[in-house]
Amino acid sequence: MNIQIDRESRVPVYQQISGKIKEMVLSGRMPPGYRLPPERRLAAALKVNRSTILNAYRELKAGGLVDAHVGRGTAVVARRFAGAEPQRAQVLPWRQFARAGVSREDDPLLRDLLELTERRDLVSLSVGLPAPELLPLDTVRDILGRILADVGPPSLLHCPTEGLTVLREAVSRQMASRGVQCGAPDVLITSGSQQGLDLMARILIDPGDMVVVEEPSFFVALQVFRSAGARLIGVPVDQDGIRTDVLESIFSRFHPKLVYTLPTFQNPSGAVMSLDRRRHLLAIAYRYQIPILEDDPYHDLRYDGEPLPPLKALDMYGHVAYLSSFSKVLFPGLRLGWLVAQRPVIRQLALAKQSLDLHSNTLGQHLVQRFLDDGHYDDHLRRVRPVYARRRDAMDTVLRANARDHMTWRRPDGGFYFWCQLPPSVSLARLLAEAAEEKVSFLPGGACFAGEPAEPHIRLNFSFPSEEQIGDGVLALMRAMRRAIDEPARGRHRGTPPIV
Amino acid sequence: MNIQIDRESRVPVYQQISGKIKEMVLSGRMPPGYRLPPERRLAAALKVNRSTILNAYRELKAGGLVDAHVGRGTAVVARRFAGAEPQRAQVLPWRQFARAGVSREDDPLLRDLLELTERRDLVSLSVGLPAPELLPLDTVRDILGRILADVGPPSLLHCPTEGLTVLREAVSRQMASRGVQCGAPDVLITSGSQQGLDLMARILIDPGDMVVVEEPSFFVALQVFRSAGARLIGVPVDQDGIRTDVLESIFSRFHPKLVYTLPTFQNPSGAVMSLDRRRHLLAIAYRYQIPILEDDPYHDLRYDGEPLPPLKALDMYGHVAYLSSFSKVLFPGLRLGWLVAQRPVIRQLALAKQSLDLHSNTLGQHLVQRFLDDGHYDDHLRRVRPVYARRRDAMDTVLRANARDHMTWRRPDGGFYFWCQLPPSVSLARLLAEAAEEKVSFLPGGACFAGEPAEPHIRLNFSFPSEEQIGDGVLALMRAMRRAIDEPARGRHRGTPPIV
Repeated sequence: MNIQIDRESRVPVYQQISGKIKEMVLSGRMPPGYRLPPERRLAAALKVNRSTILNAYRELKAGGLVDAHVGRGTAVVARRFAGAEPQRAQVLPWRQFARAGVSREDDPLLRDLLELTERRDLVSLSVGLPAPELLPLDTVRDILGRILADVGPPSLLHCPTEGLTVLREAVSRQMASRGVQCGAPDVLITSGSQQGLDLMARILIDPGDMVVVEEPSFFVALQVFRSAGARLIGVPVDQDGIRTDVLESIFSRFHPKLVYTLPTFQNPSGAVMSLDRRRHLLAIAYRYQIPILEDDPYHDLRYDGEPLPPLKALDMYGHVAYLSSFSKVLFPGLRLGWLVAQRPVIRQLALAKQSLDLHSNTLGQHLVQRFLDDGHYDDHLRRVRPVYARRRDAMDTVLRANARDHMTWRRPDGGFYFWCQLPPSVSLARLLAEAAEEKVSFLPGGACFAGEPAEPHIRLNFSFPSEEQIGDGVLALMRAMRRAIDEPARGRHRGTPPIV
Repeated sequence: MNIQIDRESRVPVYQQISGKIKEMVLSGRMPPGYRLPPERRLAAALKVNRSTILNAYRELKAGGLVDAHVGRGTAVVARRFAGAEPQRAQVLPWRQFARAGVSREDDPLLRDLLELTERRDLVSLSVGLPAPELLPLDTVRDILGRILADVGPPSLLHCPTEGLTVLREAVSRQMASRGVQCGAPDVLITSGSQQGLDLMARILIDPGDMVVVEEPSFFVALQVFRSAGARLIGVPVDQDGIRTDVLESIFSRFHPKLVYTLPTFQNPSGAVMSLDRRRHLLAIAYRYQIPILEDDPYHDLRYDGEPLPPLKALDMYGHVAYLSSFSKVLFPGLRLGWLVAQRPVIRQLALAKQSLDLHSNTLGQHLVQRFLDDGHYDDHLRRVRPVYARRRDAMDTVLRANARDHMTWRRPDGGFYFWCQLPPSVSLARLLAEAAEEKVSFLPGGACFAGEPAEPHIRLNFSFPSEEQIGDGVLALMRAMRRAIDEPARGRHRGTPPIV
């Protein structure tokens, strides 16, 4: 509220204020229902005592211009101008205006999982986050200071939709270390790999289009494709990755629009697609002319064995669009990922991105670029890999000692997760409720399937919790499991939301 | 490439390397076409001399396993495994897989404008950016340091999709200063107001839905609505804002899905909707039950006169969804804006945002929150407003002295733009080309209309260039204008892309 106070005037300050407000009410500038600022705030804004504002508001109330109610503050009374408003107007029911099917499409599961990480009293085995205590905050602070000094104002201004050129160059060097030769123009910086998924759906998927996904698969990707109207076909994953024999028969029968695959440390199964399968997948994609979206966020997080080349490194005919992220190794909160694809695809993606968010945040892009170019990314990898390997081993050990009666799993060579199969009799809704009582969370597996899964699964994360929390969390989960198995029909849990 | 070198071994290091690579090629781990890392990079990675790698590669070439071409590096030869690849595979024509109509929807204008700001040799009167030299970089550095120290790792981790609670609270206090009483749960943090537009379209607009827009309007919003498949109806804006008399007849005839309006310092016209019109717009929106999207990024950038309450402050029945941004006052590169609406709407928007980018970048949200809560936002406003007022006056002065023969305009009371009407004979495509030669850019007005504009217009920005650049830029523009008027048919400009 813009009120000029004349300290020289003989009119008391509180009357200057009430007079000005009265003027604004009578002129209609403050219409009926308009709420005056809280007294404390207005006092601070006008640099007067709170009692001055109290007096001003009191005078306005006495004049019948405003009214005060506990909890709702002071508002311009409605009847004075009531004639100008339609009598029967009601709060607009926005839901009736929603786009057809909008509420069906979006599942709050992911959002709800994120909220869980903020709870201090709970061991989270549910999320896919790097270990927060390992984040190199001092390096971040130094680099941010240098960016502001060296780059100056442009570090807070716009950048090209495709991303900062220096970052796209750094990413293309990163890609070379993964066996993919590409240049900056082949790279699009995205606001997290989440946006990469959305962008790909946005340029490719018409409602009714068929998309082949692994079963299980990254549940968020399934949401994105469903939300674009795709029909999902699930193809099973075994220890060597997606079953390319099944895939071939699906290609020949349905000619799908896209195959979505996570060949390396598949989320959630942890499987690594064998080199033979990789070559077979490409061969049949060439034969049936099917584009492939390769999602590879865990590439650098291998704890045992030899790395395999991404599909993109083996692809000779531009069939593969490659998606990865800085969120699993560095900073999930910066929301930065990247796509590598044929240049016309990058151009189309950039046009779509322009209308989504114009570009990804500039300061974060500078930060990640310097992390890569100054060698901090590799240093950080060297530091976190042994920690994650130990956490994986700790989880495997405590599972072996306590969970063998109830679950089967394979120890993964990399990535962030154990994927555990449960007996068919276990209700995951029930288990979720019991686990919440035991203060431990996990990802129920149902969301990872295109259709109805044959057996219940859960995904357990070992990167975010400490070794101690992993021990405690698995023991708590096993207590919950025993109750879920022993007393399957206990009534008080009936209200549990059926997330799976 | 993971190659262990045994320094104690009697096998020369270069042969250890070539042997390992040979093994990977023959096992298929490095398939045909696979490119070996550049010699320099592999030498650095393995901590050996470059000549060692040269020798290793030479040996592999001699064995016929790899081949080297200038500019393409060293690659595994293809014929060895050619049998396994289909003979007629070709580069995948991704375009044929594009979603129906995807290429028509996205106009590169905005992206192209952003690129112009990076050109040092050009006076940009085309963008809508704050003055970069006024950005308080020292404050930014101090605050970032404090965030990393106080908040720690969570400042780089995920945050809720709706935004950081502390920022949503700070925004709700900001809204109170604009006359809108709301709480944190009524606020959604977006990745720029660009994403706010996209989100609103995403939850509301089905293909074929009618959206009423002002004429002229913010061209980016028109793109977003078109891209969602909306049919746009334009309603003229005069000096008192949108013509609500026209609007009323459109409401009664068409019952549109949404009205999109910028009531305060309308982009591009600079018009401010009068209080009477604001109340009339709300009254007819109530009567015909039409939702309103109010876009208000320039609210705090008033240089003369008294502020008017936003529609949202006058709205008693939840008809208004309110969109604003930190990009015009603070940092466009952080991509942060916000929406205020009924809580069920906020919930629906958050579900949609979850699948777009999960959440907006966390560190930027902390930065803006401290800017607001520590009073730096208001300090900064006090510093920039007089500068922008002087730049506006400078532009008005130089236009009065030089442009009266060719254009008409009104000096705006706030915002960032002059909106200038040109004689019907001027071709904007021609003017753009001449202006490029004179090294000055502007926004051609055609993109701001839902239909075909009656007269040509251009939008000139005065916030980004200095007073000196404004003078030079307008003079350069007038030279271009005279040439565009004098020689309308000069052949060599025929190739200019018809942006309008």
